[in-house]
Amino acid sequence: MTSAVEMVRMVRDGQVTSVQLVTACLDKIEAENDQLKAWAHIDREAALARAGEMDYIRLTGRPMGALHGVPVGVKDIVDTRAFPTEYGTPVMSGRQPDHDARVIAQLLDAGAIIIGKTVTTPFAFLDPSATRNPHNIAFSPGGSSSGSAAAVAAGHVPIAIGSQTNGSVIRPASYCGVFGFKPTSGILPRTGVLQTSQTLDQLGVFSLYLEDTALLADVLAMYDPADTASYPWPRPHMLSGVQEDVPIEPNFVWLEMPYFGTLDDDARKGMNEVIDALGGQIEVIDAEQSFKDMPEAHKIIQDYEISRNLEWALRDHEDQLFDKFADMLRRGTKISDEDYQEALKFRTAMIGYFAAFFKDYDAILTPSSSGQATKFDDGTGDPIFCTYWTLCGLPCVTLPILTSGEGMPVGVQLVGNREEDNRLMRSARWMLNKLSAPLDEHDGTSETGERSGL
Amino acid sequence: MTSAVEMVRMVRDGQVTSVQLVTACLDKIEAENDQLKAWAHIDREAALARAGEMDYIRLTGRPMGALHGVPVGVKDIVDTRAFPTEYGTPVMSGRQPDHDARVIAQLLDAGAIIIGKTVTTPFAFLDPSATRNPHNIAFSPGGSSSGSAAAVAAGHVPIAIGSQTNGSVIRPASYCGVFGFKPTSGILPRTGVLQTSQTLDQLGVFSLYLEDTALLADVLAMYDPADTASYPWPRPHMLSGVQEDVPIEPNFVWLEMPYFGTLDDDARKGMNEVIDALGGQIEVIDAEQSFKDMPEAHKIIQDYEISRNLEWALRDHEDQLFDKFADMLRRGTKISDEDYQEALKFRTAMIGYFAAFFKDYDAILTPSSSGQATKFDDGTGDPIFCTYWTLCGLPCVTLPILTSGEGMPVGVQLVGNREEDNRLMRSARWMLNKLSAPLDEHDGTSETGERSGL
Repeated sequence: MTSAVEMVRMVRDGQVTSVQLVTACLDKIEAENDQLKAWAHIDREAALARAGEMDYIRLTGRPMGALHGVPVGVKDIVDTRAFPTEYGTPVMSGRQPDHDARVIAQLLDAGAIIIGKTVTTPFAFLDPSATRNPHNIAFSPGGSSSGSAAAVAAGHVPIAIGSQTNGSVIRPASYCGVFGFKPTSGILPRTGVLQTSQTLDQLGVFSLYLEDTALLADVLAMYDPADTASYPWPRPHMLSGVQEDVPIEPNFVWLEMPYFGTLDDDARKGMNEVIDALGGQIEVIDAEQSFKDMPEAHKIIQDYEISRNLEWALRDHEDQLFDKFADMLRRGTKISDEDYQEALKFRTAMIGYFAAFFKDYDAILTPSSSGQATKFDDGTGDPIFCTYWTLCGLPCVTLPILTSGEGMPVGVQLVGNREEDNRLMRSARWMLNKLSAPLDEHDGTSETGERSGL
Repeated sequence: MTSAVEMVRMVRDGQVTSVQLVTACLDKIEAENDQLKAWAHIDREAALARAGEMDYIRLTGRPMGALHGVPVGVKDIVDTRAFPTEYGTPVMSGRQPDHDARVIAQLLDAGAIIIGKTVTTPFAFLDPSATRNPHNIAFSPGGSSSGSAAAVAAGHVPIAIGSQTNGSVIRPASYCGVFGFKPTSGILPRTGVLQTSQTLDQLGVFSLYLEDTALLADVLAMYDPADTASYPWPRPHMLSGVQEDVPIEPNFVWLEMPYFGTLDDDARKGMNEVIDALGGQIEVIDAEQSFKDMPEAHKIIQDYEISRNLEWALRDHEDQLFDKFADMLRRGTKISDEDYQEALKFRTAMIGYFAAFFKDYDAILTPSSSGQATKFDDGTGDPIFCTYWTLCGLPCVTLPILTSGEGMPVGVQLVGNREEDNRLMRSARWMLNKLSAPLDEHDGTSETGERSGL
């Protein structure tokens, strides 16, 4: 599939119309969604009407936006006036928001076409959705942004929006073999997005190309005064990060983490090859004893906040909730305010730790998931490979550069410093180039990075 | 005063710090505001703290915004968490909003420093404020954006935000000798701004330089889903309009309007000189009989909507209201729904008329005001020179290029097609260049356009 960056250029130059792009996406979705179940809501007529408007704007010489005419998918926890927004649960069946979320407004302002809403796991939690992995439908696409990852992997749309409270962007991107990017907490505006954990909820994006994740993140990025995590000063320009040369070769670090026992042999072997390929640009540090309290702090904050934000779901709809979600709500209400405050303090200390840490390193190299996708019947997989970074709100990007013994994709994650998402993108671009000789079919550039869908 | 465009460059290049820029502004404000009364609220410590943050962001190589470190003034009808927002009336004394307006969020996201709130006439209506004209304090600065126009004219800030429901940006800019720009209705987001007339209220900007008005408008422009006038597709890039060359020489039109009997002899003479200087690029059309119903339609819509939005002020605070405002509220409540709907239909028809009209012309050349500023004791002046264009939401820019016999500034207005604000800017730039030989001290470029303050 052509990249969004390239689509924008082609629409501007008149080589393709938005109506053509949107028609191709819709045709593919309609042919494959019965099997893939990546989409919760589609409106063919509305998408084509919008595409026609964007084409008309071009024809009449009117202003074009940064995503002019480009189709986009949006996770069904993001409020849209034009589509239902049902959070993946029968509890919210038929819910139609009165207002667009802030990120939807940004997409419209940029001239994008919202093709539809992608399937989310119920309440964006760990219980599975019906979505299948496009590489092999016997496998899970991961969660909770199942539909966005699968839709992009299948070539239904060039770019899609998801979210991550633990590992819900990076893990499905790894499982589905696409780029996933979760910017620093506070860069993307959350007004109009389902709030589960105000401290941990973070928006993210998916694409087949690194540059597209940066472009989409740039379009969405803004200060949102109604979002408690949003900060009132300028945001990094992420596409510039992808496009600019590194001043000197970046330094990576591999932290051997306490949870690495769960890494598949395949994934461990692949990661070792990446470490070898980086040669002198990477340092390996044993961190087994450090940070060991981080998952517990994440769990306390997550469960405490979600259970208070969504306790009405347990009270009024217990029979319609999945087990993991209902268990978490019950557990969360029992967490004391003191334990919650302690966990927040611990998080603040860890954020301070990493701020100093990234003076020495440009990025942490780390697995995106324990390995290939779980089997469909075994759930959406383990988010632990994201927990630490999500807790601290660090920017994370997963690169689809490994393949398992069963031929399934496996991602490699880079984690950067807060608010230095452009630096992370620059380091990721450098690493992709460095590894491109053996891995050139996944190098993330629109010129050479064509990937097949289903 | 240096332009905002130049300030951004200097801050980026380290030639000046934001703290230095802000300190200079605050010192000038503190020395002159007792006489000028342009500022309603100033917070020296907060502005300097914010400037220090923006300087720190630069020093640490973090992302810088499009207005990084630049001081801005904001009319006191725009909600700010950090300052009171009192609408220029004792009725709202002490009002402190919980949330920043959408344009404030845009300023913060761009790295700007909000120096303070500028004086507005009460409820942004025709009754005067205490602000004086910086060119001669015996004169009015115009209204209702009195403080923003005066503060920019005095060199207190390089750029400021105002608003216009009839003529409240263009008229004070004309009276104070600065550039004023009111973009197409729907380009700038109004959430968090005092709503008087939802159909007619429009935000605008002031500067000593044409390019600065475009830069500030670009920073503020966005789709605002909560604003009924905002539109969900891309906005023109106005600074590009100022900076790009015209493909061919633009065509202007002078419409001789029914209200031109009120034009001062000075202003009429100056406008004729401009018409002569444009030579073959301008057509003169007698429009005395056309459009004569437009002021009545404007008045019906304005009075109907304001009286319903603000009837509580009459009910609860009649003793604290100025006469013109109270009279309008009483008058407005008596307007029938039928008359209001008729006026809205008439407006829609006129918008359609102008959409076709601008196929032949790039811009309408027209006076910005009846001439020089009114005397302070005679009120804020007549908005009729803006009424027609405001009614249709057309983009308007006033250029400070004439001088009255008494040495007061007089603006020349250009009116463009809806959503073609970049084309209007391009035409305005061309006209300034064309006229620059006799008028070079007002040519609006940062290189040569230095102007003195008080």
